[in-house]
Amino acid sequence: MKLSIADIASLTNAKIVGDDPPKAGFISGIAKIEEAKEGELTFLYLSQYEKYFPTTKASAILVKPEFKKTRADIIYLEVPDPNKAFFKIISAYFAPKFPLEGIDATAFVHPSASVGENTALGKNVVISAGCKIGKNVKIFHNTVLLENVEVGDDSLLFQNVSIREECKIGKRVIIHSGTVIGSDGFSYTMENGAYVKIPQIGNVILEDDVELGSNVSVDRAVMGSTIIKQGTKIDNLVQIAHNVVVGEHTAISGQCGISGSTKVGKYCVFGGQVGVAGHIEITDNVLVAAKSGISKSVTKSGTYFGAPLKEIKDAFRQEAHIRNLEHYAKRIKELEKKVAEISEQLKNSLER
Amino acid sequence: MKLSIADIASLTNAKIVGDDPPKAGFISGIAKIEEAKEGELTFLYLSQYEKYFPTTKASAILVKPEFKKTRADIIYLEVPDPNKAFFKIISAYFAPKFPLEGIDATAFVHPSASVGENTALGKNVVISAGCKIGKNVKIFHNTVLLENVEVGDDSLLFQNVSIREECKIGKRVIIHSGTVIGSDGFSYTMENGAYVKIPQIGNVILEDDVELGSNVSVDRAVMGSTIIKQGTKIDNLVQIAHNVVVGEHTAISGQCGISGSTKVGKYCVFGGQVGVAGHIEITDNVLVAAKSGISKSVTKSGTYFGAPLKEIKDAFRQEAHIRNLEHYAKRIKELEKKVAEISEQLKNSLER
Amino acid sequence: MKLSIADIASLTNAKIVGDDPPKAGFISGIAKIEEAKEGELTFLYLSQYEKYFPTTKASAILVKPEFKKTRADIIYLEVPDPNKAFFKIISAYFAPKFPLEGIDATAFVHPSASVGENTALGKNVVISAGCKIGKNVKIFHNTVLLENVEVGDDSLLFQNVSIREECKIGKRVIIHSGTVIGSDGFSYTMENGAYVKIPQIGNVILEDDVELGSNVSVDRAVMGSTIIKQGTKIDNLVQIAHNVVVGEHTAISGQCGISGSTKVGKYCVFGGQVGVAGHIEITDNVLVAAKSGISKSVTKSGTYFGAPLKEIKDAFRQEAHIRNLEHYAKRIKELEKKVAEISEQLKNSLER
Repeated sequence: MKLSIADIASLTNAKIVGDDPPKAGFISGIAKIEEAKEGELTFLYLSQYEKYFPTTKASAILVKPEFKKTRADIIYLEVPDPNKAFFKIISAYFAPKFPLEGIDATAFVHPSASVGENTALGKNVVISAGCKIGKNVKIFHNTVLLENVEVGDDSLLFQNVSIREECKIGKRVIIHSGTVIGSDGFSYTMENGAYVKIPQIGNVILEDDVELGSNVSVDRAVMGSTIIKQGTKIDNLVQIAHNVVVGEHTAISGQCGISGSTKVGKYCVFGGQVGVAGHIEITDNVLVAAKSGISKSVTKSGTYFGAPLKEIKDAFRQEAHIRNLEHYAKRIKELEKKVAEISEQLKNSLER
Repeated sequence: MKLSIADIASLTNAKIVGDDPPKAGFISGIAKIEEAKEGELTFLYLSQYEKYFPTTKASAILVKPEFKKTRADIIYLEVPDPNKAFFKIISAYFAPKFPLEGIDATAFVHPSASVGENTALGKNVVISAGCKIGKNVKIFHNTVLLENVEVGDDSLLFQNVSIREECKIGKRVIIHSGTVIGSDGFSYTMENGAYVKIPQIGNVILEDDVELGSNVSVDRAVMGSTIIKQGTKIDNLVQIAHNVVVGEHTAISGQCGISGSTKVGKYCVFGGQVGVAGHIEITDNVLVAAKSGISKSVTKSGTYFGAPLKEIKDAFRQEAHIRNLEHYAKRIKELEKKVAEISEQLKNSLER
Repeated sequence: MKLSIADIASLTNAKIVGDDPPKAGFISGIAKIEEAKEGELTFLYLSQYEKYFPTTKASAILVKPEFKKTRADIIYLEVPDPNKAFFKIISAYFAPKFPLEGIDATAFVHPSASVGENTALGKNVVISAGCKIGKNVKIFHNTVLLENVEVGDDSLLFQNVSIREECKIGKRVIIHSGTVIGSDGFSYTMENGAYVKIPQIGNVILEDDVELGSNVSVDRAVMGSTIIKQGTKIDNLVQIAHNVVVGEHTAISGQCGISGSTKVGKYCVFGGQVGVAGHIEITDNVLVAAKSGISKSVTKSGTYFGAPLKEIKDAFRQEAHIRNLEHYAKRIKELEKKVAEISEQLKNSLER
């Protein structure tokens, strides 16, 4: 691999500093600052990684314009957002190309199913009756689609994905391994001391540009649809229950769980292991810190934390009070002592 | 689809109101109140959905007898439990029929295994040596059973399920995709600075009428059996560790985790993301709110919340105190000020 | 099965007590104390299981030397650690032998891949281009390895495991069903109101003697490697995000989640459902109780609990204060009343 620094600067609108007189002007690869080897390009964005700058072996580095350029043996590329610039380079030159091509002889496509041009199906893939698979789709080995599933153009499904009947997957959707779309919702009625299953006759809709991590579970709706809207990204091991609707461009981190029939707005961001109760609504632009528990509707955009959930400044203030409890207890004790003393003194003075 | 309202009323013991003079008397389908179209039947159960009543396009609606029937253009079916009546209709007329039939040519059945009448095995299913599969079972594509697994009559295993050797699955059991039964328990001893694995030689028993969601993990016992008893329902992404016993008719919501050798009683209900420590016992009829952490045995039936776990009324009272902490801190400060003043006044008065 | 008690005593360095005159001297199997049948060997380790001793049907029992030997109808084997001795017996005589052998006709091995001697590949296994599989490896049915994956000697991969391209698996590694290695990290930039995916071009390295439970997700690195170091054990449904490094001989219990770029030391132990923030460092020998949330680096070995995380003695003290809140509130109220009284008395006395 040999990439010209001039090309990289052009791609990222970077100003080259410290390459005077101009050096060879090529990089051989990219790496994190603590792992970069001679000839490689790296970047500096978070301040906690600055400790690696004096010793990095990288030959070029993307930095903010204000970064102190204390080393003369490295070429600086100044950009406002070194991380974004770096990721642009990854996308342009290093994005993985998955070599899956054609329809494998061991893949099964039901005669009533349709498969678009240039779509690749791996080994032992099962495309059941009535499925409609778009163009330029890649479905990796051992992934199984039950009846009437639709997958839009340019989508990517990794190995061992399970999609139940009637679910609709949009365009440019990415689904990672082990993920299950359309399993039954957790819905029963209790009759004569035993749970009776409520048939789950709805489906799941993943709109365009959705990405689901690995081992995610998205349950089908009792009726109607569980919907993940356009551009929303969901991390590994997340639970999306029946009839949930997640708005556009929301990000849900690993191991979050959203209970049945809850609606989450657009441009929300949930940290890891957040739990959300059923039948509530979270408005748009709600940021929720990791491990929070949301038991009531959130009607105001903002940043929240805790279980029960509070605005983050209230949660921090409350936490400070809790840390002070030992101190408060001591002060109550001292007050009691003091008040007893005063009471005694007063009694004595009145008796005089 | 065309269902007579008279038939529906008969199935659900409903009283028809507002169909005078009688209209055509047929519905074309069912839907949620906010999504119903003309000709469809819907239901009203939770009060937060009443806001959709004035505008629903449904032609018929299941309601409680006391519901205010303010619209004349809709047929009312009065029942005590509109949701149960609605689910009865779903079960009777709309329950999904999975079209899997026969033993696919790509399914493998070991010569020493037995498969009952009318059982269907999907593509690439693996039924290993010594397995005994009952009658009317459906096992979907790419599901793998290792040696000597038993599956009772009328059970339903979706695609990409993994069952390890020696596990016993009862009748009418449903297992959703991605679920793993019989993986090794997390058991090691530390020897000379390294973990040494303890072989896990027990198995898993799922009794009749158990349902497991998608991506559930149920570990086999070190010795003996991990047991999920009759009629118990387990939601997605739940962890059941080695040697756990879950009693009859218990419901465990998504992302709960139950640690090794713990016993959970019957008719318990756990909300989502509850964690339970190992080697403890939870008695029958224990309801635990979402996100709770149970570190000690629970010997009294009731409703609980928190980590550490408390009876829910105590948890709520404690939470109220925590919310009041700011107020308490202020009152302590005021008391200190007041006491200092009194002390000063008293001192002055005594010195006079 | 017929094992001589003399052989068992020799294997575990146990002293035989209560076999005078010597009995037949054989056991027919092993079992937990509450389930043992006549002829079987059991053990007693945790005090909460002593209640089963008076009634156990076991014919022999591993106990500590100080155990009160109140029954004459049972043979005692005295050892310092009855549980370790018992597990040694399991390992020696009862460890499961997985009967998978040879390369199944339905397994796919790309011509450019290599497979070592005595390695077994189950049905529908996919070994993609460039893979290198060592000797004595067992890969069960429907497991899929994408391009250039390496698996070291004596490793064991159960059914329905998914390994993405370029990941490196060491020797004697065990991976349970449903686990996904090398799915993409959860990394996006926001551009013009939409998330843009950052290609994940790193990989995952599992060093020798690592074990991963079922339905675990280990994401590949953005660049470089996500690394699980030698001897570390990870339980079911755990999330390991991109670029995480977990040190040697660490144990991570079920449903823990470790966020991106975090480094965990060696000999750490995490209870279940612990969450760890991204870009932090946990030093060696850190024990974290279940359900804790770690949002900042931990630089001192020790035992911790809570969210926010505290040293466990501080967490317990704080919890005691929280339990006392009702009492504190009462004392504040009483102080206020008392102070008002004093104030009144003082005022009266001064006015006299």
